[in-house]
Amino acid sequence: MPLLVTGSIGIDSVKTPFGQSNNCIGGSAIYFSMSASFFTDRVRLLGVIGQDCPFDLTELFAGRGVDLSGLERRLTSKTFRWAGSYEGAMNEAVTDQISLNVLAEAPPAVPEQYVDSEFVFLANTAPSLQLQLLEQIKNPSFVAADTMNCWIESRRDELSVLLKRIDALIINDGEARMLSGEFNLMRAAERILEMGPEIVIIKKGEHGSMMNSKSRDSFILPAFPTSDVKDPTGAGDSFAGAFMGYLADGEKIDFKSLKKAVAYGTVAASFTIEEFSLEGLLRISRDDIDKRLALLEEVTKF
Amino acid sequence: MPLLVTGSIGIDSVKTPFGQSNNCIGGSAIYFSMSASFFTDRVRLLGVIGQDCPFDLTELFAGRGVDLSGLERRLTSKTFRWAGSYEGAMNEAVTDQISLNVLAEAPPAVPEQYVDSEFVFLANTAPSLQLQLLEQIKNPSFVAADTMNCWIESRRDELSVLLKRIDALIINDGEARMLSGEFNLMRAAERILEMGPEIVIIKKGEHGSMMNSKSRDSFILPAFPTSDVKDPTGAGDSFAGAFMGYLADGEKIDFKSLKKAVAYGTVAASFTIEEFSLEGLLRISRDDIDKRLALLEEVTKF
Repeated sequence: MPLLVTGSIGIDSVKTPFGQSNNCIGGSAIYFSMSASFFTDRVRLLGVIGQDCPFDLTELFAGRGVDLSGLERRLTSKTFRWAGSYEGAMNEAVTDQISLNVLAEAPPAVPEQYVDSEFVFLANTAPSLQLQLLEQIKNPSFVAADTMNCWIESRRDELSVLLKRIDALIINDGEARMLSGEFNLMRAAERILEMGPEIVIIKKGEHGSMMNSKSRDSFILPAFPTSDVKDPTGAGDSFAGAFMGYLADGEKIDFKSLKKAVAYGTVAASFTIEEFSLEGLLRISRDDIDKRLALLEEVTKF
Repeated sequence: MPLLVTGSIGIDSVKTPFGQSNNCIGGSAIYFSMSASFFTDRVRLLGVIGQDCPFDLTELFAGRGVDLSGLERRLTSKTFRWAGSYEGAMNEAVTDQISLNVLAEAPPAVPEQYVDSEFVFLANTAPSLQLQLLEQIKNPSFVAADTMNCWIESRRDELSVLLKRIDALIINDGEARMLSGEFNLMRAAERILEMGPEIVIIKKGEHGSMMNSKSRDSFILPAFPTSDVKDPTGAGDSFAGAFMGYLADGEKIDFKSLKKAVAYGTVAASFTIEEFSLEGLLRISRDDIDKRLALLEEVTKF
């Protein structure tokens, strides 16, 4: 089934205890699409870049089944830029510099050939924009969204509307606590489910993730144990990409398939963080993902 | 096989966002013994109390197969007291008041009938005391120990000697990072294994635990998902008690049985934290533990 992602495309500079990368490709839509492309060849990217974008996205996604007809290049605008750094356990990025540029302008238009998308992922942006984009999709069967602390704080009303319109919310633990007002993550999940979505996935960085459903099913999975974390940037969007890609390629959505989708998301994220920028995803095949999935099963079952 | 535990017996006062308990029974040897007693009736407790100890340990452990011949009551001494509090996610206790009392005196003597103990758990205390106690055991087949930041900082040499004499080290994530000098917990585990033990278990509070072996086996298990955490005190020692109790009752120790032991440790800890003091363990049966183990398997497998 076609899988639409709308999110950022950025020029990233990242510094971690293990090195740095300058002016590399980044952005939620990029990590998501690359990760999802291992599972389905019907990814549809919706995003916007400026005239200064140094990356050839057609070449980047060549042969990966990613439709770029929703990619808009604005000749009088500049591409989104982000510079960040990580320290210690690298659980949280510090933003050193951010230039929204084209992201502060009107969002890209949804092309006619995208409006029948069955699966939709709304990467983090203002909830009003997420809603505006979602309204342009005719009849989506499964919609997931991400959000972040600034929208939880300053756009609570719009976010509440969004939460009633989506099937799954995928956020990190700090955001889940802020959104729910609960420290205990099981309670936080319960509160968030009351706000609308059928499914909530709480990502806990190096501690993995948990998924809860309105029908009171729970799933908890550690992160894949890797000793080579170089750059956590993109982990969350790689997770979401594999999660949604696996579901979009599947027969049906039940808690069993959702669990496996979370496991695939975990594995995709583990490859992303082993290298800077997209390198971790660019050097692997679907076979590498499946091998690591088997290993993840082995180290978690008892 | 007989399982010896040496550790503290204390009078605890604890305050958490969910209430408080005053002058309740606590201490590592108490939580450990109670938890282990669900798995084996050959627990041997070694510990010391003062004349002011208000608890009847004979009554507390009645019918639970806990040998108290190593319990020493010193008529001119006072019992160990600890007052602590927890906030937020309750991952770490703040010590509000501590009176070592009898714990600052000479350790209890190992009774003759304990020297053939096959399984030994050395709860947290000065590494020199742990070594001194261990030397009195004739030929233990499996020794595990806990330690903490103050010994890692101030008694590194003695701790190094201890690490070469034990089979398993069970510590928390902050201690593992301090001991190894590594932030990444997989790397931390590798460094610690180089220091001596065959097995290292790193406890991550609400995020569960991980176990690594010298033969490069790994196991990662989330905490049991509970929305009712009232008091985390004793979680680590309850974990260790169930872990060692299950092994001591078993046929052999291999990575498969070690994994199951970690799972039982996780479940025992989950009952402890649902109530103040020992209440969580006192109200359950082995059947409750096994039911929750099955549930833990269900919410972690994919």
